Amino acid sequence: MDIYHKSLQFHEQLAGKLDIVSKCQVNTKEDLSLAYTPGVAAPCKAIFEKPETAYLYTIKSNTIAVVSDGSAVLGLGNIGPYAALPVMEGKAVLFKEFGGVNAVPICLDTQDTEEIIKTIKAIAPAFGGINLEDISAPRCFYIEERLKDLLDIPVFHDDQHGTAIVVLAGLINSLKIIGKKKEEVSLVINGAGSAGIAITKLLYSYGFENITVCDKFGILSSNYPKLNEYQKQILSITNLNNRQGSLTDALKNADIFIGVSAPAIVSKEMISSMNKDAIVFALANPVPEIMPDEAIKAGARIVATGRSDYPNQVNNVIAFPGIFKGSLKGRARQITEDMKLAAAKAIAELVTDDKLNENYILPMAFDPRLCDTVSNAVINKINKC
Amino acid sequence: MDIYHKSLQFHEQLAGKLDIVSKCQVNTKEDLSLAYTPGVAAPCKAIFEKPETAYLYTIKSNTIAVVSDGSAVLGLGNIGPYAALPVMEGKAVLFKEFGGVNAVPICLDTQDTEEIIKTIKAIAPAFGGINLEDISAPRCFYIEERLKDLLDIPVFHDDQHGTAIVVLAGLINSLKIIGKKKEEVSLVINGAGSAGIAITKLLYSYGFENITVCDKFGILSSNYPKLNEYQKQILSITNLNNRQGSLTDALKNADIFIGVSAPAIVSKEMISSMNKDAIVFALANPVPEIMPDEAIKAGARIVATGRSDYPNQVNNVIAFPGIFKGSLKGRARQITEDMKLAAAKAIAELVTDDKLNENYILPMAFDPRLCDTVSNAVINKINKC
Repeated sequence: MDIYHKSLQFHEQLAGKLDIVSKCQVNTKEDLSLAYTPGVAAPCKAIFEKPETAYLYTIKSNTIAVVSDGSAVLGLGNIGPYAALPVMEGKAVLFKEFGGVNAVPICLDTQDTEEIIKTIKAIAPAFGGINLEDISAPRCFYIEERLKDLLDIPVFHDDQHGTAIVVLAGLINSLKIIGKKKEEVSLVINGAGSAGIAITKLLYSYGFENITVCDKFGILSSNYPKLNEYQKQILSITNLNNRQGSLTDALKNADIFIGVSAPAIVSKEMISSMNKDAIVFALANPVPEIMPDEAIKAGARIVATGRSDYPNQVNNVIAFPGIFKGSLKGRARQITEDMKLAAAKAIAELVTDDKLNENYILPMAFDPRLCDTVSNAVINKINKC
Repeated sequence: MDIYHKSLQFHEQLAGKLDIVSKCQVNTKEDLSLAYTPGVAAPCKAIFEKPETAYLYTIKSNTIAVVSDGSAVLGLGNIGPYAALPVMEGKAVLFKEFGGVNAVPICLDTQDTEEIIKTIKAIAPAFGGINLEDISAPRCFYIEERLKDLLDIPVFHDDQHGTAIVVLAGLINSLKIIGKKKEEVSLVINGAGSAGIAITKLLYSYGFENITVCDKFGILSSNYPKLNEYQKQILSITNLNNRQGSLTDALKNADIFIGVSAPAIVSKEMISSMNKDAIVFALANPVPEIMPDEAIKAGARIVATGRSDYPNQVNNVIAFPGIFKGSLKGRARQITEDMKLAAAKAIAELVTDDKLNENYILPMAFDPRLCDTVSNAVINKINKC
């Protein structure tokens, strides 16, 4: 039986991958009067007088919402809120199992940008953070920006920032191996959607200076047809010579390729045209832009994918549980660029120099040190705000 | 230490009364690929093709939202969404502990009626039912009505219907004791808010014919100042002689008094003016309309309150866990009047004739037969729809 049939059976047996359980038993009248009326009036009054004590007395301290409108789910596209639910439950499972964070899957029966913003703002009081998930670009940028302004709890679109953090961690270690510096390398990102834009911004913040971004019609430049607002924004930090041309053109003499785009669109020739010791992150999933063995044959030195059956899996689960665990513990009001950079560096450092090699640039998702390392790195940056 | 201090300490120790846990372990790559990518694509695709299979593969089958805007919380009034959270968590605890139902507390950062409706509709896909809680009247009636129209899952305002069901159950057994018939008795309800209106409607559906409703300015009649739409509606089934006067007037020669109003507003004289074998449900909480011992001294034969320290506690927890358990199991699309009547009768029947007496008209909240009895009664009515 293949993984899809197995998973269908698995989901049917569970009938929901989450349970919501009580942390207190209710067996006696006194139990009832502590957890519910009349005793519950005491924390209610305390919170009414001092709203921030909600973190002291309620689930807000350790509970986030995982919110999607089902518009860009995995590789499945716009499958809507009902069909998105198994993914959001899965994400909540990972938040709990890897980070100890309570996560509630919320699937929205609207794809109207303003309604999404209003709805998330309206349900925010019970939550200590909002993880946006699988919302299509460019709406996802605007929704996240607006919610960051409106809410005093962290709002984090994992498809953007989770991916960017893990990519940066992988690149930090890749550069160590090949002995090049971030200021010197030329880097090509293919795919100017949610992940591509966020990766661009985070790599620039980290100090990469020569970044070129491509999308369907080639290199993003001022002449590119129909740039959205967010693609326009990154023109000020990428392709500073305003080069035009195709992805093939862009890859010539590039040091690093990062694909967050489409299956099998990069040829061996394109990889061969890159500089010596090329780094290739082919992250389209499940079929990457180029298969790892082909990329290696074509001259790449380090290859990463989104798959668990090849070395160097770029998997968001490396980052997001620790990011939210730390943000909640530290009562962060936002997840800042500094916190993301610190998380990426901390992840990279978990691969010690004696173990670092072309097939081990990122810690494994199941590395037991991972969550607390990321969480602590994040907390340090909150305290320094 | 009093119950309020104890409860504050209890809430601080727990820091949230709920946990969201995974029903599956994620220890290996295969676990990950079953619960998350790539396997999760299989239930996603199945639900995309047949939306009703969401009940088969996701938490929708056994998860409801407990939603409040914090506008009418317990006896505390309009304390807002943050301060309401301990109550909604408590309710979720009761749903799980008494009914095995997963419940997510959702506190809304808006008290605008239309925004509440839109928000609840928008978050509905992941839930198999909506329990509205502590929303002020008359907004609660309109919100529930509209959501019932908009959604294909049960929407149930517990302050209305939970209370009405338990009151009816108590009355069915009270009438058995005093040997009067529902068609013959005259019944006075004080308090024309959410509970009062719902009690009126359910008792009428059950077959009580002579019902008079009072509010602050006395008997509800066509001359009553400022009737809201919902109070107007019940004029067609109550006070058919269009009597006018005070609560004191209404109680003269009445058989039954049901107070869902304010502390200590009924005197011994008022009870003495009622018919022989008077039934008094003084449900204002924690201080009832008249204390049980005073009501008995004044001639009442049966007294019920909302308190756990007197006999005959009218406690919604007798009804709501079984109501939702049954509705979810039976995949009800609505909770109908028939389902509520069946629940009330089933609750009443749990007090067998050999045990029935003036101090035991309702089963105890902790009666282990309760939830499944109510659940089965509800399921029977769904199947007969």
